Amino acid sequence: MSKLLIVGTVAFDAIETPFGKTDKILGGAGTYIGLSASQFNVDSAVVSVVGDDFPQEYLDLLTKNNINIEGIEVVPGGKTFFWSGRYHNDLNSRDTLDTQLNVLADFKPVVPNEYKDAEIVMLGNLHPLVQLSVLEQLESPKLAILDTMNFWMDNALEDLMKVISKVDVITINDEEARQLSGEYSLAKAAKKIATMGPKYVVIKKGEHGALLFHEEQVFFAPALPLEEVFDPTGAGDTFAGGFAGYIAKTGDISFANMKNAIIYGSNLASFCVEKFGTERMVELSGEEVDSRLEEFKKLTQFEIALT
Amino acid sequence: MSKLLIVGTVAFDAIETPFGKTDKILGGAGTYIGLSASQFNVDSAVVSVVGDDFPQEYLDLLTKNNINIEGIEVVPGGKTFFWSGRYHNDLNSRDTLDTQLNVLADFKPVVPNEYKDAEIVMLGNLHPLVQLSVLEQLESPKLAILDTMNFWMDNALEDLMKVISKVDVITINDEEARQLSGEYSLAKAAKKIATMGPKYVVIKKGEHGALLFHEEQVFFAPALPLEEVFDPTGAGDTFAGGFAGYIAKTGDISFANMKNAIIYGSNLASFCVEKFGTERMVELSGEEVDSRLEEFKKLTQFEIALT
Repeated sequence: MSKLLIVGTVAFDAIETPFGKTDKILGGAGTYIGLSASQFNVDSAVVSVVGDDFPQEYLDLLTKNNINIEGIEVVPGGKTFFWSGRYHNDLNSRDTLDTQLNVLADFKPVVPNEYKDAEIVMLGNLHPLVQLSVLEQLESPKLAILDTMNFWMDNALEDLMKVISKVDVITINDEEARQLSGEYSLAKAAKKIATMGPKYVVIKKGEHGALLFHEEQVFFAPALPLEEVFDPTGAGDTFAGGFAGYIAKTGDISFANMKNAIIYGSNLASFCVEKFGTERMVELSGEEVDSRLEEFKKLTQFEIALT
Repeated sequence: MSKLLIVGTVAFDAIETPFGKTDKILGGAGTYIGLSASQFNVDSAVVSVVGDDFPQEYLDLLTKNNINIEGIEVVPGGKTFFWSGRYHNDLNSRDTLDTQLNVLADFKPVVPNEYKDAEIVMLGNLHPLVQLSVLEQLESPKLAILDTMNFWMDNALEDLMKVISKVDVITINDEEARQLSGEYSLAKAAKKIATMGPKYVVIKKGEHGALLFHEEQVFFAPALPLEEVFDPTGAGDTFAGGFAGYIAKTGDISFANMKNAIIYGSNLASFCVEKFGTERMVELSGEEVDSRLEEFKKLTQFEIALT
């Protein structure tokens, strides 16, 4: 087993979907990544920042899930990052209603001493310079995984390219892959992004699954066709957390093992969307994850003798 | 091996893509289905209609590919069905520039006597009453497969529901499944469509693959992530032809075998889009299909021991 260091927001979300709306609830990329990875009982820590308006019970929830929170700075008198969004009827797109950076605006991440030797680092979506700072505090990670989004391509491309050049794996969605590469074909986009640094390119297609590219190889993990999607918030981070958590648990960074890791990422993301916010993830059992893995096998595995 | 009876248009297409444009070339659902199924060396016949403007060389091409054309009526003085379309830059959507029904307007399909005992029938996209007429001329098909599209949902829903109620398998695309069922979730849509008749529901998602639903089971065939898509015309029909052809070849209508059939459908469709019109399909070798099957295995097959 390898140590997993996660950086990402720990925050408040307020969410509206066609099925209902929430007040401020626990959210943030760091939260979703941490909860997802915790399914593998790995030794993980989250580096983040909150204000002193952040409820102790949320921090306790992370601790209870075996996530080290020493690296979550609590700023006295500060207010926690807040995001609010409304999903459209198809749940595939959303409008951001409000974003309050608050304490995130001056966030200087500090990696706890006992995680500086973490072998696996998951850089959740944040300003690329924050991601870079975390990466630079680590001694010699075996695998650095970067998640990012179009906002940084639009607003901090130069810094983003710096961090992209230093990581082993990048996870982005299909539209972001197209924007970053200027290529419409995802196969071409992945090749171009690989020339920017990452040896492994994971392209997330939401309800259409995820692709893993490495040199001339490609692997596909479908999304489970669900009857009900309740709230997509955090699905991409849960996917990334499942990917990073499985790799940390196995300590194996081969392509063959990464295939399994994206299957687990899809597996865990399929739970995340079943309830509002982190609700489904905090109640999730290992038996449920195992049983869903069997569904993934039935969904994709076939036997053909050549004709 | 089972006999395969196909009904569908044999026609002229004129196509514009971002990569070029064609004059009138060979097209039509019956053509693509027939050429795709012919990869399995099955005993197949196409029922269709053309005008006497239709080149003998196109008919010879079908014959050369082991497709019986006795059921293709040539109307003296008649003009062949013509469709013209222009694809948008992403190749995912297109505008119809021209549709000339011509001889198709009065088409009364006649199934050749020696194919009335066909075990497998593939009803390609056409007016539902034409599809129904073909179905009624057959003695007792083991498996009836229906392809249709939104045009008939908009313009001949009652007739369409009649033919849907009589088939075993329906293949439609995701938007059409949503329209037909009134459900956004494809899992729910498939369940609702199954109550209309078909025991097997295949939902085609284009570049995002295809889903096969049967009772509580679901199987997914990805599309191959291609670097270049040249012309998507006929991909859906080629998929259906591969599905029907593989089932006719094996004579096995079990769910397990249908999984293999949609993998072959995706396999053949991945070639179809590589060149204009039928160009790639007529030059396609069995070795190429076998080799691409290996790519499909690498793309989707994984080994996970439960954690």
